[in-house]
Amino acid sequence: MNRRILLNCDMGESFGAWRMGDDAHAMPLIDQANLACGFHAGDPLTIQRTVALAVQHGVSIGAHPSYPDLAGFGRRHLACAPEEVEALVLYQLGALDGFCRAAGSQLDYVKPHGALYNDLVRDDELLNAVLRACARYRPGLPLMVLALADNSRERRLAEALGVPLRFEAFADRAYLADGQLAPRRLAGAVHHEAPRILEQALAIARGEPFADLDGQPLCLVADSLCVHGDNPESLAVLRRLRAMLDAA
Amino acid sequence: MNRRILLNCDMGESFGAWRMGDDAHAMPLIDQANLACGFHAGDPLTIQRTVALAVQHGVSIGAHPSYPDLAGFGRRHLACAPEEVEALVLYQLGALDGFCRAAGSQLDYVKPHGALYNDLVRDDELLNAVLRACARYRPGLPLMVLALADNSRERRLAEALGVPLRFEAFADRAYLADGQLAPRRLAGAVHHEAPRILEQALAIARGEPFADLDGQPLCLVADSLCVHGDNPESLAVLRRLRAMLDAA
Amino acid sequence: MNRRILLNCDMGESFGAWRMGDDAHAMPLIDQANLACGFHAGDPLTIQRTVALAVQHGVSIGAHPSYPDLAGFGRRHLACAPEEVEALVLYQLGALDGFCRAAGSQLDYVKPHGALYNDLVRDDELLNAVLRACARYRPGLPLMVLALADNSRERRLAEALGVPLRFEAFADRAYLADGQLAPRRLAGAVHHEAPRILEQALAIARGEPFADLDGQPLCLVADSLCVHGDNPESLAVLRRLRAMLDAA
Amino acid sequence: MNRRILLNCDMGESFGAWRMGDDAHAMPLIDQANLACGFHAGDPLTIQRTVALAVQHGVSIGAHPSYPDLAGFGRRHLACAPEEVEALVLYQLGALDGFCRAAGSQLDYVKPHGALYNDLVRDDELLNAVLRACARYRPGLPLMVLALADNSRERRLAEALGVPLRFEAFADRAYLADGQLAPRRLAGAVHHEAPRILEQALAIARGEPFADLDGQPLCLVADSLCVHGDNPESLAVLRRLRAMLDAA
Repeated sequence: MNRRILLNCDMGESFGAWRMGDDAHAMPLIDQANLACGFHAGDPLTIQRTVALAVQHGVSIGAHPSYPDLAGFGRRHLACAPEEVEALVLYQLGALDGFCRAAGSQLDYVKPHGALYNDLVRDDELLNAVLRACARYRPGLPLMVLALADNSRERRLAEALGVPLRFEAFADRAYLADGQLAPRRLAGAVHHEAPRILEQALAIARGEPFADLDGQPLCLVADSLCVHGDNPESLAVLRRLRAMLDAA
Repeated sequence: MNRRILLNCDMGESFGAWRMGDDAHAMPLIDQANLACGFHAGDPLTIQRTVALAVQHGVSIGAHPSYPDLAGFGRRHLACAPEEVEALVLYQLGALDGFCRAAGSQLDYVKPHGALYNDLVRDDELLNAVLRACARYRPGLPLMVLALADNSRERRLAEALGVPLRFEAFADRAYLADGQLAPRRLAGAVHHEAPRILEQALAIARGEPFADLDGQPLCLVADSLCVHGDNPESLAVLRRLRAMLDAA
Repeated sequence: MNRRILLNCDMGESFGAWRMGDDAHAMPLIDQANLACGFHAGDPLTIQRTVALAVQHGVSIGAHPSYPDLAGFGRRHLACAPEEVEALVLYQLGALDGFCRAAGSQLDYVKPHGALYNDLVRDDELLNAVLRACARYRPGLPLMVLALADNSRERRLAEALGVPLRFEAFADRAYLADGQLAPRRLAGAVHHEAPRILEQALAIARGEPFADLDGQPLCLVADSLCVHGDNPESLAVLRRLRAMLDAA
Repeated sequence: MNRRILLNCDMGESFGAWRMGDDAHAMPLIDQANLACGFHAGDPLTIQRTVALAVQHGVSIGAHPSYPDLAGFGRRHLACAPEEVEALVLYQLGALDGFCRAAGSQLDYVKPHGALYNDLVRDDELLNAVLRACARYRPGLPLMVLALADNSRERRLAEALGVPLRFEAFADRAYLADGQLAPRRLAGAVHHEAPRILEQALAIARGEPFADLDGQPLCLVADSLCVHGDNPESLAVLRRLRAMLDAA
């Protein structure tokens, strides 16, 4: 492994009186925190506290902007015009970054959340809208997208707007042949056994092929692995993953 | 008149399909635009368009943060803890400023809206919370507050946190002896006749006394006059006020 | 014309401080008021006042439920599961009907709003969800849908759940050959000239054919015409339409 | 004990992806479920499921209306006009009751939530507004309020509007001499030990005096005890309380 792969995790997903996640235990184990910006989760106080926690642990802060949909946690596609998406992403970047700068830090990257994230794989206009929001917010601000077998589409659009890309992969999800995530409705779409998750993580970290949903070899080039730390089981896997990568 | 008084106006108060105000006609006449930040009005697209309009006319952009209350337009007191107020103001400053910076401008000042604005006159903890939000967002970012006969309380609290103050007065509202606005339920609380409004504006601009609600002389030291431009009548007064001040 | 056609109009679309429509002038001219239920417009006080206005003028009250989307005025498709749609329609029916019953009236029919209305034409699962909400709320509560050249699909699904249907047509919109509304992006999709609107209204009222977007004859069987009364022009047309139908 | 005291519990307080409470385990142990109506918690699907759970266990359903404040969970006072409170309570009663009637049940009583509940103790106009909402929604619909040493104020206002009252008391809270709940900031305001809670519950159930915060005897006449069942500890106390009252 001649380069380091990072670990990113969705964070700050509480809202008001409702708790979600175990940010306090997961934060020390990760490199990058994708912070909810108030549209699917994350009220201002939650954002402020999560930013402080990330800064305390030296974790890089990414924006996790979403369609405006608290009741659906941003998981439902909302048919916004591209200019609406550009504006609502820009709004969320600024809102989060204000807390980062007030804490002596700054926004490091952007990773859209939920349905918006999924829509970017299929819709050039939406991807362009999010890229424009990144470029307009701060030149050089990177966008994190799904690592595919072939990311030439994403590279082409991002390059046109001068936006650096970061690619993320999943250790606990099965993949289709083209590098898309296997839909959750398919059997075997989610890996539940720690050895399988760690094996896939290591393969991705080393840039080596691993088995897709059909058992065929798939190779993904990724900068970061998306991990979960919201319950004791996922935290246990995360600790082993962290130790394994640190040792590699 | 040995200094120039500015004109500020609440702007960007549309929301989604609902229109409010006549920003296009009022913007060319003012110096400072107080922009709704999404909590009482102002969706992301509205903010973006209003920022563009302000930049086009060289108008200074202020944040107009509010309690989170779309249904009440931010006019209803909401019993937030000071740390909540600090966080929700910080959130709104960042959200708006992202659009300003994307448009090559920046946030110039902060003027709280509605019930939050009114609460600052009475509540030291809330005023401190808003001052902290300003200071943490950007050193030197000014807070605009109500000019009173005696603003020593505001000056003392702001100085302790290093926040510059700006003072605003109203040409179309009657005042109590201490410089508080006469409550709207009182007869004569609002001036409707253009000559009376222009006369009070000129007195404030010159730093000269004018008659309070009881007819007693009141002198206010103000940096800016809050004006309205949302209908043909108020726009007509605003045009005369602009011409009068430019000529002075 | 051997049967009477009714006039329905979207009403109660203000929200908090934002005004929309001219309900006071339109209400006396219509038979059926489609009332916003709080999800795309219509706060509780607005609902209460609009119900009172409808009762005062003897106008039948229909629910105008929507996807939860104030910022988008319910015009954006939101990918809800059918059981979510069923529950959110049921919620809105009850909320509105409470005001109706408190005013000595009752909910008379249901006409979905905006994107939800449009989605029903294409999606059997969503149409079934809305039909279930109607059937569960009150046996016999009618659902109003778009009159098409062939409504056998709607009739079949509604009959299976025992829900009566009402069909509405538009006098100011051009139609495709199958009775779908011509998309607004097409030239000629909206009729702006009063004579053309009145002519199409009369044809629909008489059950006679009128010209579709391509000039071919189209015959629609409708119980109600959807009208607008939110500005002086549309109110003028509405007055003529009302007079014409009353005279017929 | 010559009459039966009931157990009521706040229910349906999840929202979208966020879980709160352990309704499945608490519901079989209580008599009355206070259901969130969507303004502080409780999206439509959550309401529907909680109504079904209550019906399944033969539990009486009460509305738990709130100020509109998801981010604050309805715990923050919002300065609404009385007519606004009347309308927003009416809205929530109808919304919840629609699900009750769709499930073959009906709304049995109203118990305001959080800050609105607390405000009723002090504000005659707000109490009247809530009473009017109850009376208008359905004649005879009872309002549940805090049992005090002297409830003559509540009785007088409710009688004038023909609204039956229900009184609730708390077994796990210390009381002031007048029957107000001791503010949580005071030492000893909340009872944490099961024997103390059960002892106070039994005294209230029997109409016998128990010690207030200062150790003085206090006697409350209550119809129902407000209980909690959102964690293993509170569920354990609730089970003992249920068994004790059933045996009494």
